[in-house]
Amino acid sequence: MSGLFASRWVQRPAHVEDVGGGLPAGFRAGAAAAQIKPSGALDVGLLVCDADEVASAARFTRSGVLAAPVIVCREHARLDGLRAVAVNAGNANAATGQAGLDAALAMQHAAAAAAGVAPDAVAVASTGVIGVPLDAERVSAGIGLAAARLRAGGDEELTAAIATTDAFPKRASLAVTLPSGTVRLSAQAKGAGMISPSFATLLCFVQTDAALEPETARLLLGVCVKRSFDRISVDGQLSTNDTVVLQCSGASGVRVAPASEDELRLGEALDALLRMLALLIVRDGEGSRRIGRVVVSGGDGEGVERVARCVANSPLVKCALHGADPNWGRIAQAVGAALPDAAPLPVDIAIEGVAVCAGGAAVPCDAGALNAAATGMEIEYAIGLPGDGAEAEVFFSDLSHEYVTINAEYTT
Amino acid sequence: MSGLFASRWVQRPAHVEDVGGGLPAGFRAGAAAAQIKPSGALDVGLLVCDADEVASAARFTRSGVLAAPVIVCREHARLDGLRAVAVNAGNANAATGQAGLDAALAMQHAAAAAAGVAPDAVAVASTGVIGVPLDAERVSAGIGLAAARLRAGGDEELTAAIATTDAFPKRASLAVTLPSGTVRLSAQAKGAGMISPSFATLLCFVQTDAALEPETARLLLGVCVKRSFDRISVDGQLSTNDTVVLQCSGASGVRVAPASEDELRLGEALDALLRMLALLIVRDGEGSRRIGRVVVSGGDGEGVERVARCVANSPLVKCALHGADPNWGRIAQAVGAALPDAAPLPVDIAIEGVAVCAGGAAVPCDAGALNAAATGMEIEYAIGLPGDGAEAEVFFSDLSHEYVTINAEYTT
Repeated sequence: MSGLFASRWVQRPAHVEDVGGGLPAGFRAGAAAAQIKPSGALDVGLLVCDADEVASAARFTRSGVLAAPVIVCREHARLDGLRAVAVNAGNANAATGQAGLDAALAMQHAAAAAAGVAPDAVAVASTGVIGVPLDAERVSAGIGLAAARLRAGGDEELTAAIATTDAFPKRASLAVTLPSGTVRLSAQAKGAGMISPSFATLLCFVQTDAALEPETARLLLGVCVKRSFDRISVDGQLSTNDTVVLQCSGASGVRVAPASEDELRLGEALDALLRMLALLIVRDGEGSRRIGRVVVSGGDGEGVERVARCVANSPLVKCALHGADPNWGRIAQAVGAALPDAAPLPVDIAIEGVAVCAGGAAVPCDAGALNAAATGMEIEYAIGLPGDGAEAEVFFSDLSHEYVTINAEYTT
Repeated sequence: MSGLFASRWVQRPAHVEDVGGGLPAGFRAGAAAAQIKPSGALDVGLLVCDADEVASAARFTRSGVLAAPVIVCREHARLDGLRAVAVNAGNANAATGQAGLDAALAMQHAAAAAAGVAPDAVAVASTGVIGVPLDAERVSAGIGLAAARLRAGGDEELTAAIATTDAFPKRASLAVTLPSGTVRLSAQAKGAGMISPSFATLLCFVQTDAALEPETARLLLGVCVKRSFDRISVDGQLSTNDTVVLQCSGASGVRVAPASEDELRLGEALDALLRMLALLIVRDGEGSRRIGRVVVSGGDGEGVERVARCVANSPLVKCALHGADPNWGRIAQAVGAALPDAAPLPVDIAIEGVAVCAGGAAVPCDAGALNAAATGMEIEYAIGLPGDGAEAEVFFSDLSHEYVTINAEYTT
């Protein structure tokens, strides 16, 4: 993981060090192959915090069609005191009705028994095909096997167990130097962003041995998710299963008080970590070759957000990104589509710092420099709308032949 | 055009006959090659109505980034009394600033001189690459050449002149039997739907020799556009240039009075015509192999509309359509994404009449029948939401490797 901070868009804070792997003090993880994935690969994971007092926080998809594990977390778990997480890949347990809810509850209770904690201290998560019954017995058996393998170095196999279409693992272990002492921060993620084909979804589990109040954990996770996973798009498709969990064991003995310098520094580390993982997910967007960042500035917060989303999700912009085509007419089209009835719109557009459109009209530019800029691996699009004070960014992947192949030629 | 009504989704009304080609009485068209298209093909068209009294109506894109010809039509033309239409392909004249407005005005004045009508009786339209200056002298010269070729059978070359990425021409000439007599109705369209790559846009010109009040023309066009071009999507991308014009010469002597049986019958014919052309545009969506129709019913008008759009524009649903994959989990995902925070949502889903999801949960179905149904050329998705009384439909194309090739490998 030495190349974790490989993007110019996320700086490694000076007080953060990449330590390669392993969980913070107080955490153990394990995984097993429970025959949920047809390949027979690892597909059930268990993550346990051994501290009696745990502060935690969680965020879930806002989809109107919620997977059973998301419903169980929201209705049957104490999200500020999660001791364990049980997860499976290969089946999303979504659109599965009462049988699905029963399976998610069985998964929660099996993990509680295996970890020796109360059922409402267990979060459950699933990822995979939608609309297929989940075999709760297989998952429960897998949880039992995973429990036997729990160890501090289990983050690697936990990451493997949650992978689906992922081309590479997404995990990190950081040492974070706070004024009050050094803590560890780790995370395991999977997915190709907002993509929700029948077998991919965003999951991310984050651990630290810092001691936080549950309210501090909730606040930090909320702010950092808004600046990371909420700012990425592979294909604009909200999942039924997206789940992010932060757990704090306190085992380092370093207490992070609300509104302290410690909280600020830990927040910076968490922010850099989640933004980097979010970028890795975009980079691993199905079939992706290049990633883009669109930054929209202007006077209307809702307007800049809509324009950023519309540009990032435009298949025409994505195809141009894929083909290294600096065809900015497609950016102008997406801006106009995002703001109907707003003409005339004096929009400014620059690609990699090269101004191509000012006040709504083309401006002469160095075509050679523009074409060269478009061939990079990370392309930045800056869009100016009237006014100032508001800004929105979205990171997005391109649209490739491989995306179509993966999503057209896969059959249930 | 014998196969015009080739879709099960649009019935030919009994009082409508396909007559193959030609413009209604009172109309002439011509085209020329003005070197706007790099290929040297026909690229400038002129359409003239010879009647002194013309009733017309027009509809335009709602994009916040409007092409210059759209602005000129809205600000410098009498849309209820259009005598002529001048159009070019190969350059959208969008994001071109004041020079673009001057070029569109020059085009309008050149057409007025060539047709012998007032400038404000001329509509102008353009389609092609965005952000490149339009050579007004070339277009004006082309209009002069096209004027010398004006004839009643000029609809075929007008259709050729407006084509860009179109794989086949989209035009129709119908005889419509009204209680008061028989009238002719013709139309020439281009485009691959809402697609707006740098060189494609929806344009449609409609003519009839029936005599209508301008208000009747406006009303009929508005209703029929809402049921046709407003209900299609290739890639959800609103264009800067979309333009639809209806002109009524009255040369048949058949007067269509407001709220008459004649108006009803003419409306049925116009509705069938525009819906069929809209379907042809979807069928010609860049790289398209299959087309889908999603019909959403429920109790909330805004909700059914959002769900229909979200399903039709989902790249995952489009890829599944392309690959003949009846993977309905992607439909469920798109429904949930369209209605955030609405869980639990007892959604029903059927593909080609095969129920796959009821009350939000999978139901057993005949997988063989489902797989067979998914291989057709036209696939229908029925989605039921709670309540009743509201319904929305959207026709959409699939997402193919060819779409990516066309839009990634084209460079300005």
